[in-house]
Amino acid sequence: MSSTKPQPNPLSHWADRLEERVLAVGHPSLVGIDPHPAQLPEEFAVVRDTSATTATRAEAMAAFGCALIDVVADRAAAVKPQSAFFEQLGAEGVKAWETVVAHAHDAGLLVLGDVKRGDISSTAAAYANAFLEGDAGTDPRTLCDAITVNPYLGDDAVEPFVEACARTGRGLYVLVRTSNPGSKEIQLHGDPPLCDLVATKVARWGENLRGACGLSSIGAVVGATHESELARLRSLMPHTPFLLPGYGAQGAGASGLRDAFSDGTHPFRAAIVNSSRGISFAYRKEAHAGKGWRQAASDALDEMIVDLRSAMNGATA
Amino acid sequence: MSSTKPQPNPLSHWADRLEERVLAVGHPSLVGIDPHPAQLPEEFAVVRDTSATTATRAEAMAAFGCALIDVVADRAAAVKPQSAFFEQLGAEGVKAWETVVAHAHDAGLLVLGDVKRGDISSTAAAYANAFLEGDAGTDPRTLCDAITVNPYLGDDAVEPFVEACARTGRGLYVLVRTSNPGSKEIQLHGDPPLCDLVATKVARWGENLRGACGLSSIGAVVGATHESELARLRSLMPHTPFLLPGYGAQGAGASGLRDAFSDGTHPFRAAIVNSSRGISFAYRKEAHAGKGWRQAASDALDEMIVDLRSAMNGATA
Repeated sequence: MSSTKPQPNPLSHWADRLEERVLAVGHPSLVGIDPHPAQLPEEFAVVRDTSATTATRAEAMAAFGCALIDVVADRAAAVKPQSAFFEQLGAEGVKAWETVVAHAHDAGLLVLGDVKRGDISSTAAAYANAFLEGDAGTDPRTLCDAITVNPYLGDDAVEPFVEACARTGRGLYVLVRTSNPGSKEIQLHGDPPLCDLVATKVARWGENLRGACGLSSIGAVVGATHESELARLRSLMPHTPFLLPGYGAQGAGASGLRDAFSDGTHPFRAAIVNSSRGISFAYRKEAHAGKGWRQAASDALDEMIVDLRSAMNGATA
Repeated sequence: MSSTKPQPNPLSHWADRLEERVLAVGHPSLVGIDPHPAQLPEEFAVVRDTSATTATRAEAMAAFGCALIDVVADRAAAVKPQSAFFEQLGAEGVKAWETVVAHAHDAGLLVLGDVKRGDISSTAAAYANAFLEGDAGTDPRTLCDAITVNPYLGDDAVEPFVEACARTGRGLYVLVRTSNPGSKEIQLHGDPPLCDLVATKVARWGENLRGACGLSSIGAVVGATHESELARLRSLMPHTPFLLPGYGAQGAGASGLRDAFSDGTHPFRAAIVNSSRGISFAYRKEAHAGKGWRQAASDALDEMIVDLRSAMNGATA
């Protein structure tokens, strides 16, 4: 599966599908679906109602996720549901997760499941199975196109996920340098810093999994908040798709992100920029006061798109 | 909550509850519940049947977990269900997880959920909520007494879990030095090695959460396979409960584990030793040929108990 030997079915390759979508919509906006109960619009207040049944609360959580998808489906490069918020409602919450993932697929969207799983050998394979591969009994609409994984357990823990990607054409985003301030002590530990070691591994894990577009299905999570590190990490991972969290709510702007993209056919090659509550919960912001939450979310996504395009010198992909 | 100022309700403190149980049964055996479909006894073959409904497959998975609990409930120090295997069956699988966790509680067992979650700020809080805390609408029988978490994202990612432990008396086991061979490159990276940095953090996170027994509710996962590192890690984390995976199937024996225990009132203080498929799937081993899987599992647990006791100079707790 090297770049000189195209995929049998290139459309099934994560990086090819994502690049195609980014080119089609003209920007790399990844919309997060984080149904934080306390922040959900009043329409979904029953999620917060501990006297309601868990099934009722989970149905409302699913309804929010599906409604947000409907708001952004014509424009988002992809969506990223966050598993933790769904898992709070146990099995019913996971059912809501499946509903939301399936709804995103039905809306024609790519789904990047933010699950940050990680374990060893057959346990890692079970997680890969749960989110990327399934078996003959799995409804494929409930699987993700890509997921996030945690590298702390090392090579033999990530390899079962990489193997699942090789079999399915789906994608991974390995945590390399996360956006939060507290990540520094661990991820910059040692010389070279740990995140550079992980970056080198990510490049190696993905080497044989490059699609027709030349990018790999094995990606990296690199915080948009670490502007000064983007060029270094990009040089360590030239063919790696980046997921850039931290834009908006966590304080990163678009102008500092140029170094994260890869040189090539269009300005947004090889990286997607995530905004979660900055879009879904824009209705809580002064700037969007008086709008319904859907309109606020839609406007916030438009603003993000304008911001990203103008930061790349007004270029459109 | 320091050791000089006992808990209002010491029985609710993870370390106190675990120490009490280890003293009661006289050994530190932690029985893993890993319902790997391919290895399940024939009685549960429907789990492997992709033509059966997911609900039927998940019910059989739950039945296996509950049956294993019934086999070990009189002797296990605690049980450790592995989330990945349940998640393979989606929402129905998570329902099976909840059934198994509740059944373990009903059988009087402590439940250590092996979920290895990790994320930042409110997302980490959502995971803590999902497994340790819940809300007024949560069936408390489906919550775990302790869970495993991944430290790669740093202090601000672990703190929401620690805060949940402070509020609930429940416990955490932070991955420090995992049992798999591939963990070396990342966990021993730098000088001091990364795992020592994490160990120091674990000790600090747990400092104010010590129970009446003097041990903290914030524990560490330390592979039984790294015998030569146990004394160093114990000295960095003197009041930290250890979870030692890697015994049995992964090749570690009991005799090398002495350094993992803490000096004190009994020989098995401050560490529990995990065996998963070595117990549950003992029926697949030559040594147990001809036995039913329940008898094989029961005998394998007895052998582990004898092995651990004789390794500690024949002492009983």
